[in-house]
Amino acid sequence: MSSSTTNTATYKFNHTMFRIKDPKVSIPWYENVLGMQKFKESPGGDFTNYFLAFPGGFGDKANASDDEKAAIQLNREGVLELCHNWGTESDPEFKGYASGNDEPGRGFGHIAVTVDNLEAAVKRFDELGVKFKKRPEDGKMRHIAFIYDPDGYWIEILAQQK
Amino acid sequence: MSSSTTNTATYKFNHTMFRIKDPKVSIPWYENVLGMQKFKESPGGDFTNYFLAFPGGFGDKANASDDEKAAIQLNREGVLELCHNWGTESDPEFKGYASGNDEPGRGFGHIAVTVDNLEAAVKRFDELGVKFKKRPEDGKMRHIAFIYDPDGYWIEILAQQK
Repeated sequence: MSSSTTNTATYKFNHTMFRIKDPKVSIPWYENVLGMQKFKESPGGDFTNYFLAFPGGFGDKANASDDEKAAIQLNREGVLELCHNWGTESDPEFKGYASGNDEPGRGFGHIAVTVDNLEAAVKRFDELGVKFKKRPEDGKMRHIAFIYDPDGYWIEILAQQK
Repeated sequence: MSSSTTNTATYKFNHTMFRIKDPKVSIPWYENVLGMQKFKESPGGDFTNYFLAFPGGFGDKANASDDEKAAIQLNREGVLELCHNWGTESDPEFKGYASGNDEPGRGFGHIAVTVDNLEAAVKRFDELGVKFKKRPEDGKMRHIAFIYDPDGYWIEILAQQK
């Protein structure tokens, strides 16, 4: 059997999961708007989990095949798991998921993506028709923006440090 | 002014934010139970954001000072931002935050931490009195566990790939 000690210094904050209404909308959005890459789909009995990440976090496997990436996905950070419960996309009774930022349901706040150049990223989002909750010029926090994903989750956008 | 192009391949999924009721409970929990390290506190007008991460994601700055880590926090992935709205910890009217996994408020699911050795991690969690939603031996998914953080958020625990 395996060793009975564990070294928390090697632990990784591997992924964050939230639910999406329609993968036909959300997966292209995360790929085309944010630039994440889907490298794995994992269907269950009545749901499918989609795993996406930015390529840089795979290090020297950034250009590897999806299978190679799936084989090492647990050894990196910054993975996004999007869970689609089958049928929500066509269910007229489905009211949508809570973003976590309104009552009731408040708790979860947002995910954040850091970019090479905030001004250029915002320009590109505008060209793509992305909906903003807060543009950089709104309010006092000029160095950050918040955009909405297709389900209404908040995504903070801010520049990396030079 | 800065360039007007942006390279999404350099983008990073930097952090995930959720709200906590009491930092005096949650920060030690994330540090002592999970092994994350708090490297920054950022007070606002009526809230404080706490930034935590596993040291490995800082690369050769894993042992650097908090200030040095804060200076490069946006250039890595796997950061956790815990937002404390002042007063929740002592407000008898405060009902707690939604985990995202129950109605109403369903949307957000969980974060996941990958560990060197699942059996050893679970043994250590037991010694620390951690509450499990699902132990590895519960159900069919023997390779994963789910624990609760102090606010009731779900944290998936699974082993890294060898």
